[in-house]
Amino acid sequence: MKNIMARPINVFSTKPSPLSTWVVILVLCILGFYAVYFPRSNAPFPTPLNSSNLQTLFLSTSSNSTIASYLRALTLHPHLAGTEPAADTTRYVLSHFTSLGLQTHTATYRALLSYPLSSSLTAHFSDGSSVDLPLTEPAGGPGVVQPYHAYSPSGSVQARVVFVNYGREKDYRELGVNVSGCIVIARKGGEFGRGAVVETAEKNGAAAVLIYGDGETWRNGFERGNVMRGIGDPLSPGWAGVEGGESLGLEDSEVLKRFPKIPSMPLSAEVADSILSSLGGAPVPLEWRGALRSKVSHVGPGPTVLNFTYQGEKKMATIQNVFAVIKGSEEPDRYVLLGNHRDAWTYGAVDPSSGTAALLDIARRYSILLGLGWKPRRTIILCSWDAEEFGMVGSTEWVEQNLINLGSKTVAYLNVDCAVQGPGFFVGSTPQLDSLILEVTKKVKDPDSEDVSVYESWAAADGGNNIQRLSGVDSDFASFVQHAGIPSIDIYYGRDFPVYHTAFDSYNWMAEHGDPFFQRHVAVTGVWGLLALHLADDSILPFNYVSYANELQLYNNRLSNLLDQKTSLHPLAMSIQEFAFAAKEADDELKKLRLQETADCSVDMRKRALNDRLMLVEKGFLDADGLQGRQWFKHLVFGPSSDHERLNFFPGISDSFTRSTSISEGERVAAIQHEVWRVSRAIHRAASALRGEFT
Amino acid sequence: MKNIMARPINVFSTKPSPLSTWVVILVLCILGFYAVYFPRSNAPFPTPLNSSNLQTLFLSTSSNSTIASYLRALTLHPHLAGTEPAADTTRYVLSHFTSLGLQTHTATYRALLSYPLSSSLTAHFSDGSSVDLPLTEPAGGPGVVQPYHAYSPSGSVQARVVFVNYGREKDYRELGVNVSGCIVIARKGGEFGRGAVVETAEKNGAAAVLIYGDGETWRNGFERGNVMRGIGDPLSPGWAGVEGGESLGLEDSEVLKRFPKIPSMPLSAEVADSILSSLGGAPVPLEWRGALRSKVSHVGPGPTVLNFTYQGEKKMATIQNVFAVIKGSEEPDRYVLLGNHRDAWTYGAVDPSSGTAALLDIARRYSILLGLGWKPRRTIILCSWDAEEFGMVGSTEWVEQNLINLGSKTVAYLNVDCAVQGPGFFVGSTPQLDSLILEVTKKVKDPDSEDVSVYESWAAADGGNNIQRLSGVDSDFASFVQHAGIPSIDIYYGRDFPVYHTAFDSYNWMAEHGDPFFQRHVAVTGVWGLLALHLADDSILPFNYVSYANELQLYNNRLSNLLDQKTSLHPLAMSIQEFAFAAKEADDELKKLRLQETADCSVDMRKRALNDRLMLVEKGFLDADGLQGRQWFKHLVFGPSSDHERLNFFPGISDSFTRSTSISEGERVAAIQHEVWRVSRAIHRAASALRGEFT
Repeated sequence: MKNIMARPINVFSTKPSPLSTWVVILVLCILGFYAVYFPRSNAPFPTPLNSSNLQTLFLSTSSNSTIASYLRALTLHPHLAGTEPAADTTRYVLSHFTSLGLQTHTATYRALLSYPLSSSLTAHFSDGSSVDLPLTEPAGGPGVVQPYHAYSPSGSVQARVVFVNYGREKDYRELGVNVSGCIVIARKGGEFGRGAVVETAEKNGAAAVLIYGDGETWRNGFERGNVMRGIGDPLSPGWAGVEGGESLGLEDSEVLKRFPKIPSMPLSAEVADSILSSLGGAPVPLEWRGALRSKVSHVGPGPTVLNFTYQGEKKMATIQNVFAVIKGSEEPDRYVLLGNHRDAWTYGAVDPSSGTAALLDIARRYSILLGLGWKPRRTIILCSWDAEEFGMVGSTEWVEQNLINLGSKTVAYLNVDCAVQGPGFFVGSTPQLDSLILEVTKKVKDPDSEDVSVYESWAAADGGNNIQRLSGVDSDFASFVQHAGIPSIDIYYGRDFPVYHTAFDSYNWMAEHGDPFFQRHVAVTGVWGLLALHLADDSILPFNYVSYANELQLYNNRLSNLLDQKTSLHPLAMSIQEFAFAAKEADDELKKLRLQETADCSVDMRKRALNDRLMLVEKGFLDADGLQGRQWFKHLVFGPSSDHERLNFFPGISDSFTRSTSISEGERVAAIQHEVWRVSRAIHRAASALRGEFT
Repeated sequence: MKNIMARPINVFSTKPSPLSTWVVILVLCILGFYAVYFPRSNAPFPTPLNSSNLQTLFLSTSSNSTIASYLRALTLHPHLAGTEPAADTTRYVLSHFTSLGLQTHTATYRALLSYPLSSSLTAHFSDGSSVDLPLTEPAGGPGVVQPYHAYSPSGSVQARVVFVNYGREKDYRELGVNVSGCIVIARKGGEFGRGAVVETAEKNGAAAVLIYGDGETWRNGFERGNVMRGIGDPLSPGWAGVEGGESLGLEDSEVLKRFPKIPSMPLSAEVADSILSSLGGAPVPLEWRGALRSKVSHVGPGPTVLNFTYQGEKKMATIQNVFAVIKGSEEPDRYVLLGNHRDAWTYGAVDPSSGTAALLDIARRYSILLGLGWKPRRTIILCSWDAEEFGMVGSTEWVEQNLINLGSKTVAYLNVDCAVQGPGFFVGSTPQLDSLILEVTKKVKDPDSEDVSVYESWAAADGGNNIQRLSGVDSDFASFVQHAGIPSIDIYYGRDFPVYHTAFDSYNWMAEHGDPFFQRHVAVTGVWGLLALHLADDSILPFNYVSYANELQLYNNRLSNLLDQKTSLHPLAMSIQEFAFAAKEADDELKKLRLQETADCSVDMRKRALNDRLMLVEKGFLDADGLQGRQWFKHLVFGPSSDHERLNFFPGISDSFTRSTSISEGERVAAIQHEVWRVSRAIHRAASALRGEFT
């Protein structure tokens, strides 16, 4: 060997020496090796897109005027679900996606929606006079649906009036008046939803319900809305209402229990005033007067008598969800979903078109990134839902139809409904996403002040960087969180806008009041888009379960203050302790793995495995049996509780309080304890999903 | 450049030229490259372990004498679940695993088991004579539990006797005798289980039930067994009965409904004969006489009167599952489970120790492979379950506790209970595993004939290569298939052995009758071990959904023959069509991907993604609401139906037939149609899991 090596050689000699041959082979090896392990990238030279300059690039493509133009186009005409104008809006969104070169598809369903035919309201006063009260709005232009409550039964009622404040059970107790057979008038307020007002009135024997918004301005607006119980198509509870699929009959008990038995209607504050100011009977209880703007001094019953008629029809309608898909390069079977509903009660400038405009702008800006060679690691889907106003119908049918793939492949669902209602950043999320939200809001400029981030002004607002939880059923995140257990976020600017669900919710209102410079739209779009970029591109999912553990600990403490000694929270405390431990371990593992370079297949595989665990945790909180009496709701940490004001978490436990009033003390305690056990087991499941190991 | 290249160089010159430096760098690169991409393997040179020589190697390590020695050790004493001798068996299995250097752990539960205290049976004949009948076996040595039915209530009954054949509903109809208040005697037979016999007797008003095995031989044996409804610990239905966990009270309605209300006992055929031969009343119906060995000519009631007493106790016992874990190298978070129960009614040579011996031998043979450098791609877990005889308690509690990880990470569960009962290969499986079973049985030698594979002699047997389905609840696969939706297999040699659950189920019986040369044990172990090697090592899972689709089509045809025109099977046909299409697509994709070399990370990732889909499909057949009235059973294709003889698939549909007898024709049809819809949607879910795409 030594001899050969020592011999002088010429690498270009015609008769190649062993060494020269060896050298040439080496070169080829190296080249081959590079060819295999470093294939040509499509990224535009000179700078390849890394995650940080990708985000800068995304932020730099914002344009308030573009969003404004989208909103203008979306609000040219009303687009109520199931109507022809709505189909135009569908085509507009679809063509926007396709014009950007995005892969699109639609999912079509047949669902039972509800429309008004006629309504009338006449007041007969004690002095013998009577007046026909207006049930339409001055702003109601062509195509604007008359005010109504979707899924209210038709009916005709002549009866005395009683004012029931917010219409909560406690209001009826404080009222101390027998309302059976009466028409009750309630003001809309706080956490207590429209459906709950009607349900409570029905329980108390009222013959009909009229609900008005007691706002400072736009007192001539009528708040439309649905009064259905549960969400999704009532004829296909738990499954998708597809053409040719199973559809229950209208008389099926499962269907009947979804609808109220007494008719209801929205009123404008003006109309309500004209009635309420004429009431006699007992004076309005002191504790109601605080925030009360209506000219009402007495609660009735009567003497004023109302003659109220509502005729409506429930009918099958075709609804369509629209999707734009950006396929992932490395993990195409992992999905980040951005969703917003498209249907509106009227022009829907705020609700939901501000969100739809934001979605269209995200599409525009992502397509720019794609043009520059960006390929997200995971698949991103932009979702435009239909018939949300009728009870999250479009998103719910889709979730029910895709449950098995959603559950195992979806990283997160990011919802935007009313993107902009006014000033101030608001966000809700499942707690593992808290950290990501804080991080992202630091990168986005505040729309209402110079040189300040969304994070900073949000921190300065009262409540600081408060992140709400997703226990409500008031937007499309409900099915994702509460039925499918998908980590979710809901973002919006401003809250409680006065023209909610009225004909005044128009482009002009947005331009004059909601977001004159459309910078709040820009801010929402920035946060929404960056969240998705992280979730789609970070090689390890930006989930933090330590904050989830802290949140659960908080709930445990709040619960222990509510409960007497008879119930043991020990199982709950133990399960949270286990979850916190698993969270800490996962966090350490995650930080270690982040440091490892990804060129190595085994590291890729280990990251995928860790991500699978991070994705699975939320599913642990689901329980196959769901909430008692409302089994469709499977999530035992977040979901609608019958007593929302007391607890907005652990809905099963919360329900067991209210249910427990009618039973013996022993049964009461046992029922609560059982629900505590169920939640504890759910948290244990989540912990074991995070650990990923068998016992 | 040319000059330099042309210049003669000496790679060992003290002052290295650029080229020499370059060459040295190249060498280092290459070495580094190899070091990184081909780390030192533990495989013994010269041959690295590839899948084919690995299998040959595995087969070559078989040893009938070793298995025999394991069985000898396991059957030295009875090992009834919850007793001290059983704890010795637990230690024996655990120490076997650890002595092989395998990583082990145990999972401990507290469950409600049931034991006898005393029993007596006296017959009073018409001639005034009476006799105390023996309720023990000659073979019953020290520690053998007296014959009883676990979970039978205690009770004392004096009543006339009626013979009810197999004790099925149809038998009572054919009998035409009112049995209310009587003690009924039934012979064990066919598909109709012990629990069902007791339940049907109870429905028909009997005061007590005595069940005997009408076999040709060992007519002095008593068949022990449990008569509980449902499976798993009755005090923790749906969750794991862990120390300190929630445990329902014995008087809880959920618990009470699990137990019969009338006492029951096993009888030997001898004892049964002495009673039955003395009966008067109507003659035994013709159609019962065929396979009837007992000396019974009349069915009663009486004149013989029995005085029957049983005293038992239900008490909390500690049970332990034992696990040996072989961690996967590339996909440690994917699991292949091999399971067998360890507890026995008596010595349990066949049931289950023949399977336990096989499991211990698998451990021995796998540890040899590990010593030779084998590293399975996925994790393999050997599972030794406790308290199966009391209703699959050990495996069910474990499945309930690990449901979330099982569902997302388990490739398959391979069960062996009574490994050898006699001659002839038998297997049951979920249909995606059919092809693998056929392939593997071709590689294993038939134990009873020369130069023939298991496959060939199995093919020659009547029924050919018949693969049963896993709708029964008679072994530990039940929870895996019917609650968790895990692809599963169940393997055994021989069937219906005469000493089933008697004190005669001993090592001697096995050595003299069951498997004198222990070659059948070797065959079972070979098939079991090879199946697991494929499932753990094949880079793409050996699942074939085309056979699943064919099986479903078969069910559809059988169903259509049973149903009248009023029910539409169109939805079912459509869903099966969609599933078949998805199966074909997946099969093509799978074949393409198999050809691709795995050194490439992206190919690895694509294979993992495909495997994820292949694993998910079975979960599609699960329905959160489960079977009506037995919601714990979630699988809508395979599960126990109330009318097993008519349909052993689609249990929900089958139930709707039997339930439907008590309701109106319209409701009957609607109920059946609704169940057809549910199954159709389940098949759609499975298809979409296989396609892996959203609608």
